[in-house]
Amino acid sequence: MNLSEDELADMTPRDFRHMVRRGEWTGRTGGACRGYAQANVTILPKDYAYEFLLFCTRNPRPYPVIDVTEIGDPHPKLVAPEADLRTDLTRYKVFQNGELVAEPTDISDYWRDDLVGFLLGCSASFDWLLMAANLKFRLVGGFITNIQCVPAGRFRGPMLVTCRLFKGAHDAARAIQITSRCLAVHGPPVHIGDPAAIGIKDLSHADLGALPNFAPQQPDEIALYWGCGATRMIAKEAKPPLMITQGDVEVLVTDRLTEELAN
Amino acid sequence: MNLSEDELADMTPRDFRHMVRRGEWTGRTGGACRGYAQANVTILPKDYAYEFLLFCTRNPRPYPVIDVTEIGDPHPKLVAPEADLRTDLTRYKVFQNGELVAEPTDISDYWRDDLVGFLLGCSASFDWLLMAANLKFRLVGGFITNIQCVPAGRFRGPMLVTCRLFKGAHDAARAIQITSRCLAVHGPPVHIGDPAAIGIKDLSHADLGALPNFAPQQPDEIALYWGCGATRMIAKEAKPPLMITQGDVEVLVTDRLTEELAN
Repeated sequence: MNLSEDELADMTPRDFRHMVRRGEWTGRTGGACRGYAQANVTILPKDYAYEFLLFCTRNPRPYPVIDVTEIGDPHPKLVAPEADLRTDLTRYKVFQNGELVAEPTDISDYWRDDLVGFLLGCSASFDWLLMAANLKFRLVGGFITNIQCVPAGRFRGPMLVTCRLFKGAHDAARAIQITSRCLAVHGPPVHIGDPAAIGIKDLSHADLGALPNFAPQQPDEIALYWGCGATRMIAKEAKPPLMITQGDVEVLVTDRLTEELAN
Repeated sequence: MNLSEDELADMTPRDFRHMVRRGEWTGRTGGACRGYAQANVTILPKDYAYEFLLFCTRNPRPYPVIDVTEIGDPHPKLVAPEADLRTDLTRYKVFQNGELVAEPTDISDYWRDDLVGFLLGCSASFDWLLMAANLKFRLVGGFITNIQCVPAGRFRGPMLVTCRLFKGAHDAARAIQITSRCLAVHGPPVHIGDPAAIGIKDLSHADLGALPNFAPQQPDEIALYWGCGATRMIAKEAKPPLMITQGDVEVLVTDRLTEELAN
């Protein structure tokens, strides 16, 4: 389906999710449903649920928990009760024993009665608040860093971040203030400035969600890096028999405004 | 041991915990170790760990998680690695199948290899910040309310709160601002004003931590109520075979400043 930026932004979360459910939207979710919080999704067997929830508790910047489904229930009751985790993301990554085995657009065939869905805040949620404050910034994409998460049980691995470039210190400082009120969607940045300091070689080569035609960082641009809730690297290290995550830039749109979840 | 208020406030967390460990201090922890965060403690068998952690995740105002010990390990590695959960609280409550069976000053005899300790922020932590801002308030005590926590698995029950009375709207508003930066120790109040609206009959009869000689609320005093991390009511409803909590007003002093844990 072809939608203008305005049409995409004006959709309700329910209408957007149903469009995805019907297979009519296969693109990124960034820019959809102005103001509504979006969630990274990680699905695991219940035997891994405690360790993963503890892992998120110990690493709230990349993995802020905004909902956890009941065992076997694909509906996130707190933030989007009408949503269905099996169908409402445009793309999934299915890992078996740490290996990526499929990238389906629907996981109904993989669903089991022992699965638990974890919804983790996504930084696409706070972009609306940055824009509402008239901040000038460019989203660069997602990167694997050399920052190690605090382990919990079998879960460990490097933190992923998203990078945004801000024009000048005023806008960068405002972005830190605004996102500090948004702990449910990563909160303040985990790093400021030099990408090499956290193991990022080249901002022009994002590991996920790379945008086309990236122009090099300008001298007046300040780079801010926020924790990212993508868990693919974690899947590769923990190697659970089954772990399903969202695609690169295709997450779940919830029914809760980012402002509702703000602290 | 007799200590002046200043001597108690000037102690380091380590010295205070060792005094408790040696059995030389049996009183409340409020007022000890100026500026350091204090933690409510709940200890459960690992079979209950996921459901309890989820319960805390769903109810962050009463139950903000600041540390979770490894299974069988009595040392809270993140916030007080030198502390020992078996000996460093002045009093404990031991529940078996929901019944209070003992109130020992040491739980070494109850410790097992399958126990997990949950440290939950305590509001005594932010009192130092309120005093540092020169706010005038009276701590009234803790109360059982008619607010029901969001259930998780076998855990459910009423929220407990602590009440403080502030002189005038300016000080009350400042207290809300200050504690909003302290989500790790309950964050902003869950209620303002009328105690009856949340099922509290009489502020002069606290359910826990009642202070002697409570003077009635004055017309210029505004009542603010914060979530409280005491889990005794939860123990009674969930009825786990074993659950150990702190005493009424005797919690764990951590090595982290409340300002370190602030958002």
